[in-house]
Amino acid sequence: MTIEFEPCGVVSLTTDFGHRGPFIGTMKGVMLSRSPDLKIVDLTHEILVHWPAEAGFWLHRSFSYFPRGTVHLAVVDPGVGTDRSVLIVVAEGHAFVAPDNGLLAEVIESYETTVIKVNNAALSKISLENISATFHGRDIFAPLVAEIASGKVDIEALGEATLDYIPSLIEPPELTGGELKGLIITSDNFGNLITNIDANLLQQFTNPTILAGGHELPVSRTYADVKPGELICLINSSQVLEIACAEQSAAEALSIGRGSPVVIREGN
Amino acid sequence: MTIEFEPCGVVSLTTDFGHRGPFIGTMKGVMLSRSPDLKIVDLTHEILVHWPAEAGFWLHRSFSYFPRGTVHLAVVDPGVGTDRSVLIVVAEGHAFVAPDNGLLAEVIESYETTVIKVNNAALSKISLENISATFHGRDIFAPLVAEIASGKVDIEALGEATLDYIPSLIEPPELTGGELKGLIITSDNFGNLITNIDANLLQQFTNPTILAGGHELPVSRTYADVKPGELICLINSSQVLEIACAEQSAAEALSIGRGSPVVIREGN
Amino acid sequence: MTIEFEPCGVVSLTTDFGHRGPFIGTMKGVMLSRSPDLKIVDLTHEILVHWPAEAGFWLHRSFSYFPRGTVHLAVVDPGVGTDRSVLIVVAEGHAFVAPDNGLLAEVIESYETTVIKVNNAALSKISLENISATFHGRDIFAPLVAEIASGKVDIEALGEATLDYIPSLIEPPELTGGELKGLIITSDNFGNLITNIDANLLQQFTNPTILAGGHELPVSRTYADVKPGELICLINSSQVLEIACAEQSAAEALSIGRGSPVVIREGN
Repeated sequence: MTIEFEPCGVVSLTTDFGHRGPFIGTMKGVMLSRSPDLKIVDLTHEILVHWPAEAGFWLHRSFSYFPRGTVHLAVVDPGVGTDRSVLIVVAEGHAFVAPDNGLLAEVIESYETTVIKVNNAALSKISLENISATFHGRDIFAPLVAEIASGKVDIEALGEATLDYIPSLIEPPELTGGELKGLIITSDNFGNLITNIDANLLQQFTNPTILAGGHELPVSRTYADVKPGELICLINSSQVLEIACAEQSAAEALSIGRGSPVVIREGN
Repeated sequence: MTIEFEPCGVVSLTTDFGHRGPFIGTMKGVMLSRSPDLKIVDLTHEILVHWPAEAGFWLHRSFSYFPRGTVHLAVVDPGVGTDRSVLIVVAEGHAFVAPDNGLLAEVIESYETTVIKVNNAALSKISLENISATFHGRDIFAPLVAEIASGKVDIEALGEATLDYIPSLIEPPELTGGELKGLIITSDNFGNLITNIDANLLQQFTNPTILAGGHELPVSRTYADVKPGELICLINSSQVLEIACAEQSAAEALSIGRGSPVVIREGN
Repeated sequence: MTIEFEPCGVVSLTTDFGHRGPFIGTMKGVMLSRSPDLKIVDLTHEILVHWPAEAGFWLHRSFSYFPRGTVHLAVVDPGVGTDRSVLIVVAEGHAFVAPDNGLLAEVIESYETTVIKVNNAALSKISLENISATFHGRDIFAPLVAEIASGKVDIEALGEATLDYIPSLIEPPELTGGELKGLIITSDNFGNLITNIDANLLQQFTNPTILAGGHELPVSRTYADVKPGELICLINSSQVLEIACAEQSAAEALSIGRGSPVVIREGN
């Protein structure tokens, strides 16, 4: 097994820890203790708690904006302290490290990837100490990523390649009887509702109508195409269907959110 | 045209994106992909959404604490995807980059500045790709700032100097019949209410009384000058009038906020 | 007096400023203006406002995850602008800088430390300018820490060693009649309730029952040891007793929070 990964010294961090308490800070302290020259960039720490699917969704749609050779660490880990595995995935010259709980399934299935299940024996190479039962982000993931991102350990040495991993908790959008049914994955600070429906799925319709929250919504190009307060759908910068309300919050206007269904139908 | 700007490799970032989703992180990824040695500092990402005036207010009162040669990028951009222009402003040895929507008006009018309107043709020099309709922060502003902050492109080469820009949406404080009338621009984490009334305007009164939220408030020097729970006004660290409530929240005590009027009157 | 402190160029930052406004950003700007090579890591900025005890609690339990030689700056400072002192504490090869308001008492009392009370005359060595009455974080603490963390000034030169400092506002847990009584210091993003009861205090009980919010709670090892929605106590990654609710919020389930009592009793 030869894995093509050349670390560039950049690490991205994604968690559901929010910003209260010292949790993210101590992870960075641990990484800098081992590898003082790393550049650590927060992707987001406001993943909906205990929902790995949102972390995987954003990672899949964000990683390519980082330098080739970045290590992307994601810790959304309701199974911390159990014997759930740790995965390292290499795709498109980037590495991803996360618990094996579905978080990385979308990345694994979207690219030609190598998936490594970390071998506990191999972890002895990186001298972990005092591993707590409740914060593997600090005690296992941070040291592991610091060693990988600084090139001090090769990914090959950390475990075996595998085809066995936990699938995503989220079903992909489904086409039935001419209707495509997806769902809302998350919302942003503006109240824009972000779906799991990729642009190419929308493009299969010639004159699409979007149904969500009891409304029929038109498709447009950008927020300013309609008047403030009007609802629209558009393909957003992550190349998925988004429901927006110009200069207002679509989440509030429609009273829907994470998990709510979104349907595309031909014609209006 | 010669513009005196020597980049020092520091970038400050101001947005209304909050911390949900990967938006700030991907902007940093884009900048590090082009210029790996940049130091990127968050100024704040909690500007009130779609309110460029607050971003401009803070930038004007914060930039001088950064090293000379910093590039300050501010993205509060309800007009994203339309043909609104991009401005680069150079003042006091610092550069500012933002949409032309009033955000930089306060900086432009407070210093001797050069204002450049970015020329779309000039953008071809920095090889932008796949520009989305909804996230110019990532697709235009971040690459542009990375090139300027690393000295790889000169500001002169990016467009023409102009005297034409969108004014601020906020009127400056007005003196009528001996009364000065300003407003609350924003509040902070402590519930302190921050006005657009500069210290020198207050100093024109010999015995000022402040009227806000139906209260007459005294002027003091710092929070601990009064007992916990008492309201005071003071000149804050940004050199503007602030309404505070010692160890409590003035925003809650007075039930006022962004846009509320604040009046200064002589005598009490 | 010789103080053993070798700065490594890393600074950690802890405040109660939240993320609104430019306050943390300008502190970083000031530090980079004086010492461009510093690496500044946010520990947390969501300390409960005006509660130094939480900042001291987290610092005590987090600092050792940073490289030896880190300077830890904590600004929770309701007495800003008064004549309260500034302390520099050196413990275990780390330096801590904070207002003298009880914030550092827990660190001082937990290790062999040297405590320096900063001498105003000595501050003249670091050329402070335009000190505001309301933001010493930016105008005194940030410059001071930048000079210490870059090795440009020795801690010995900044003041006299002292045994005189303000104690913590929080009483340590107390053992009365076989019952140990502590309290909840804070909660995290998951709603886990974090107490001031150290692991070794719990271990003095052979068959402990925890009483909190009118419930008797069992002790376990990690969140996944019980079913989603069930309450448990565990020793968390900071080595203190924590009350959790698997995959849910214990703070919501019990309707308790900061300052609420927590009792350990033998037997059940």
